[in-house]
Amino acid sequence: MESTDRISAGNGEKRDVVDGKGLTNNAISTALFKLFKKNGIPTHYVCEGSNEFSKVVRKAEMIPLEVIGRFIAAGSFCKRYNIPSGKVFKEMTIEFSYKDDSLGDPFISKTAAAYGLDIASEETLDDIENYAFYIGICAQDFFKEFGLTLVDFKVEFGIDCETGELILCDEFSPDTCRLWDKDGKSYDKDVFRKNLGNVSETYKVLLDIVQENK
Amino acid sequence: MESTDRISAGNGEKRDVVDGKGLTNNAISTALFKLFKKNGIPTHYVCEGSNEFSKVVRKAEMIPLEVIGRFIAAGSFCKRYNIPSGKVFKEMTIEFSYKDDSLGDPFISKTAAAYGLDIASEETLDDIENYAFYIGICAQDFFKEFGLTLVDFKVEFGIDCETGELILCDEFSPDTCRLWDKDGKSYDKDVFRKNLGNVSETYKVLLDIVQENK
Repeated sequence: MESTDRISAGNGEKRDVVDGKGLTNNAISTALFKLFKKNGIPTHYVCEGSNEFSKVVRKAEMIPLEVIGRFIAAGSFCKRYNIPSGKVFKEMTIEFSYKDDSLGDPFISKTAAAYGLDIASEETLDDIENYAFYIGICAQDFFKEFGLTLVDFKVEFGIDCETGELILCDEFSPDTCRLWDKDGKSYDKDVFRKNLGNVSETYKVLLDIVQENK
Repeated sequence: MESTDRISAGNGEKRDVVDGKGLTNNAISTALFKLFKKNGIPTHYVCEGSNEFSKVVRKAEMIPLEVIGRFIAAGSFCKRYNIPSGKVFKEMTIEFSYKDDSLGDPFISKTAAAYGLDIASEETLDDIENYAFYIGICAQDFFKEFGLTLVDFKVEFGIDCETGELILCDEFSPDTCRLWDKDGKSYDKDVFRKNLGNVSETYKVLLDIVQENK
């Protein structure tokens, strides 16, 4: 699996190439997937790849759900519910959305996913939700050490083609989460999405953080 | 609490007055709330009112959630997920939406309602979901006896101002559910929403059904 320097936002409406992004995302995602594995979360990660942009992963049948975990209100959540950005939640929240670009990735409840669209069993969806909580806690601790607050994140799961086991797939990177420093400065794709500064430099700072941690 | 002859759809864009609707809705809702009570669901229903349009109910602090139960795909569900109308679900599905007209009653997950918007505790939301399942089963059986299939329904809950108990409030009527006969003919607000026939006559048929059952 390769991480590229390509970046997009707004369902592909805004596009660019960010020098060094693939390197950063692969390094962060690899560090986090190793951490998740150590903490008992089954993942698709096997080992590092033949170059710094890639890793070897298990083949999986993807479950068409985006699983969104939130610690703090930001982005679409604020707009949807008229909540001020930065509101810290009592506990992490989890939302599911049905991964279908043509439908705009609509929200979906666990029972609608299980019995309405037959996406996965209710037991599998419970497992996904529990894993997502635990992933959030692990990643929050990881970034905290570097003075960064994990605001929210998106993860995706699949069924291991060989073992039939539910595994965490895709990536966990600044492209799929929000990270704020103590002053609320963004270290994630919002820098690109909202033109907040030099995207390449932001990703470089994150790479340094992970490499320092190695 | 009074049921009126006023009817609206599309967030109030389409409006009319339907002769006899208040009578029908009050009769059906009363019959169902009595049935729910008999089956152990706490409700706001106290007794019949001073006229055929009204009932006496307990005062409650409303929880700003619409709880939607579905047995069969119809309406917005089909559009949202590109599912054919009439698809029978393996089991009932439950969705929550945050009751706020200005935001368009957006979907909300249980954890987002509990920890993001502080609408109710996660335990209360679990109770609401469990009650909604049971309410759906009871209502399905009720309408089945008259040859009508309960397709979906919307219920609302509140906290009893006196006892602090979670109780079913609002109504359960053809305004807040979909009912199909064996040929797929609608006996609910879709007749008004989609101009499927004489709205008043449809509600009259339903009134006869409930009065026959008395």
